[in-house]
Amino acid sequence: MEKRTIDQSYVKYVKQLLEQQSNENITSLLHSMYAQDIAELLDKVQSDEARLLMSMVEKDKIIKVLVEMEENVRESFLSAYSPKDIADEFIQNMDSDDAAYILNQLPVKEKEDVIASLTDIAYASSLLSLLSYEEHTAGSLMAVELVKANVEWTVGQCVEEIRRQAENVDPIYVVYVVDYYERLLGIITLKNLILANPDLPLANVYNKEVISVSTSTDSEEIANLFKKYDLVVLPVVNALGQLAGRITVDDVVEVIKEEAKEDYQLMSGITEDVDATDKVWVLSRARLPWLLIGLLGGIASSRFIEVYENEIQIHPEMAFFMPLIAAMGGNAGVQSSAIVVQGLANNTLGTKNIVPKILKELRVAFLNGIICSVLLFGYNLLFSDSYDLSITVSTALFSVIIFASVLGTFIPLLLDKMKIDPAIATGPFITTINDLLGLAIYFTVGHLLYNVI
Amino acid sequence: MEKRTIDQSYVKYVKQLLEQQSNENITSLLHSMYAQDIAELLDKVQSDEARLLMSMVEKDKIIKVLVEMEENVRESFLSAYSPKDIADEFIQNMDSDDAAYILNQLPVKEKEDVIASLTDIAYASSLLSLLSYEEHTAGSLMAVELVKANVEWTVGQCVEEIRRQAENVDPIYVVYVVDYYERLLGIITLKNLILANPDLPLANVYNKEVISVSTSTDSEEIANLFKKYDLVVLPVVNALGQLAGRITVDDVVEVIKEEAKEDYQLMSGITEDVDATDKVWVLSRARLPWLLIGLLGGIASSRFIEVYENEIQIHPEMAFFMPLIAAMGGNAGVQSSAIVVQGLANNTLGTKNIVPKILKELRVAFLNGIICSVLLFGYNLLFSDSYDLSITVSTALFSVIIFASVLGTFIPLLLDKMKIDPAIATGPFITTINDLLGLAIYFTVGHLLYNVI
Repeated sequence: MEKRTIDQSYVKYVKQLLEQQSNENITSLLHSMYAQDIAELLDKVQSDEARLLMSMVEKDKIIKVLVEMEENVRESFLSAYSPKDIADEFIQNMDSDDAAYILNQLPVKEKEDVIASLTDIAYASSLLSLLSYEEHTAGSLMAVELVKANVEWTVGQCVEEIRRQAENVDPIYVVYVVDYYERLLGIITLKNLILANPDLPLANVYNKEVISVSTSTDSEEIANLFKKYDLVVLPVVNALGQLAGRITVDDVVEVIKEEAKEDYQLMSGITEDVDATDKVWVLSRARLPWLLIGLLGGIASSRFIEVYENEIQIHPEMAFFMPLIAAMGGNAGVQSSAIVVQGLANNTLGTKNIVPKILKELRVAFLNGIICSVLLFGYNLLFSDSYDLSITVSTALFSVIIFASVLGTFIPLLLDKMKIDPAIATGPFITTINDLLGLAIYFTVGHLLYNVI
Repeated sequence: MEKRTIDQSYVKYVKQLLEQQSNENITSLLHSMYAQDIAELLDKVQSDEARLLMSMVEKDKIIKVLVEMEENVRESFLSAYSPKDIADEFIQNMDSDDAAYILNQLPVKEKEDVIASLTDIAYASSLLSLLSYEEHTAGSLMAVELVKANVEWTVGQCVEEIRRQAENVDPIYVVYVVDYYERLLGIITLKNLILANPDLPLANVYNKEVISVSTSTDSEEIANLFKKYDLVVLPVVNALGQLAGRITVDDVVEVIKEEAKEDYQLMSGITEDVDATDKVWVLSRARLPWLLIGLLGGIASSRFIEVYENEIQIHPEMAFFMPLIAAMGGNAGVQSSAIVVQGLANNTLGTKNIVPKILKELRVAFLNGIICSVLLFGYNLLFSDSYDLSITVSTALFSVIIFASVLGTFIPLLLDKMKIDPAIATGPFITTINDLLGLAIYFTVGHLLYNVI
């Protein structure tokens, strides 16, 4: 097999082969492709073409392709099969975590029908228990396929067990050592199994130091464990300490990718998981909410400025710096929030003791506020005639940076305490609040100073 | 060993132990901790305390701690050692990728002295070649430690080789099969080695299908390969196809993490890699550039609005909607850029054919622009007296959303073509340009309409 780049010209080439009905060429092409590349190809052709292509993929590759393809392509593909066929041809031969993933995307009725049609009752029952775990927990990420060995066995017996399980579990990575009650005691790596004398008792050679999580552990915490301890596979135990399954690094890479994408999209004001290749109305729908929030904020600020209509007529120069003040409030606020959000996500920042964090942020804001205000004051002194305006604008700028930074630090910490994703603090809602806050400070300062000076 | 959360109270507890000089307690505590947790602890104490703690860590754990700790803590720790000692006590016993990573952070002179002091000349020379690869390439990420087997060996000979190499390579994952000239032919997993008859020739059992990269492959491309093909380890070959090293998934997780962080920070206008726990002036320095760009943009917009001073005096209501227009331009632009930047990073978007992408974006912008403008028009008709103003504001809003979206799509694509990181398009520079653009459109439209109507 060869890895390929599925670009437009490749898709065009395959479509041509389909038109020419040169099935032999297509079959040998699909044979030479990785399942991931086939899945990517299927995402980029029409659904009837996708079904045709799938019918030419080899039996044992189809399952892998099915797991890798986009949800809507899979949905359309599976709709041609009865629950019994889905059970026999696909689910039966899949790893349990992949099967649970696909079953979870089916309508409830169909999902139950598929599970009921499985002939392997033990497998069906472990699927049912996997499906019962909440999303974003270890239980929902793990697979039940693993190789375990009783601590009372010898190394040789353990190798025998691998031979017995070899077909079901791939890759193996490590063998889990359990006691009579299936409680996790430790691990032994394949390397150590190869190196150890087959007659030795397992109890003498296994490693008791093993990091494990419980079925209810949150996926973000799991991702942090993989990152911190450089893990490749992580055992999951139930409340009794019994081995329930294992999570492999590829699933965690997926979690890390999704999390980063989520934070990024929240920050850029996109409310759904969209790709540049999605349909126009999907893209539009994902982006409209922020635009509407921005619109509301803009309308609110227009009402606010209206109050100062007379002042603007007397001092139209006040209007000149409105965009500057609003923009700087937004910028300073987003910077503060972003640093807190990242600190929370990477676990480098505790949520205890909010006060010292805000005090630190105050010092950063004070420093940057002073620098920016002094620069702006210098500029205004040189290039504008109004001393009053220079004072007003710089005072307002300084206050805005301070307020926006404190708010930007406080709000994600507060959201996190309230168990809400703090990343929304970097999104549209807060930017809009900071815009408004900036203008309020600006006009209040202006009003006070112009009347005082 | 037990995994631990290194929070403030834990740090406080360790500091108390240090004050009480209860070295026995500290030694047994350090013994029970993972190297990663010790490194995290060292990052959070004073540098003299860190040095004291390090002196109590077991010999074989010290190396791992050294790799995991923050650069500045390591720098201060290593400064107490001579190049000869650094070579003998640390570098000599490290995996080559970790050694290269640490050597790269030393001053050039010291780096050379350390390498020259190594007694193992073969190892020193492979370090030298690792250090010669450019940053962010496969060569700079790989380790030379791996287990390889000649294709003419038997399975049993291959297991013997593992026994010989076991101490140097951990974990092993797979054995690489090479020909007489050390050219990579394929792989065999440990599982298959265990299952195969020791007398079989390796040539009969190894897997010829292996994904590999060259030493010059970019780290982002490598991360995408790991994500797409669910890899755990990836062999690296030189220009002759000879096996040069291997990259493991933990290093790639690091790359993925860093990339996501970089994009996130660029978007939030933070120019350096900073954490919430960094010093005030570091945080200030990382954030000032965006604030200054925002300041410049604000000053530019003030000059621009000044041109329309008379119009504002006659129609102060024009000022009311300035923040709305500027904010909406910024929002629409960032959304478009974010989607393109993600598409480029995940390789789901080609850089060829810019025109259809902009046309698609135009359709999204058209849809969202119409919805927002009509809503705003409705609001203004209901709540403001001026029909002229309602027309002006909605026309300007529509134009701004269109222009900002097209610019937001075009600029990251252009940057990518110019081999500049497209993520800067989501940052301060573009937001500021969009702010300015918005105001320009607003006043131009207003000027035209007020004079026409």
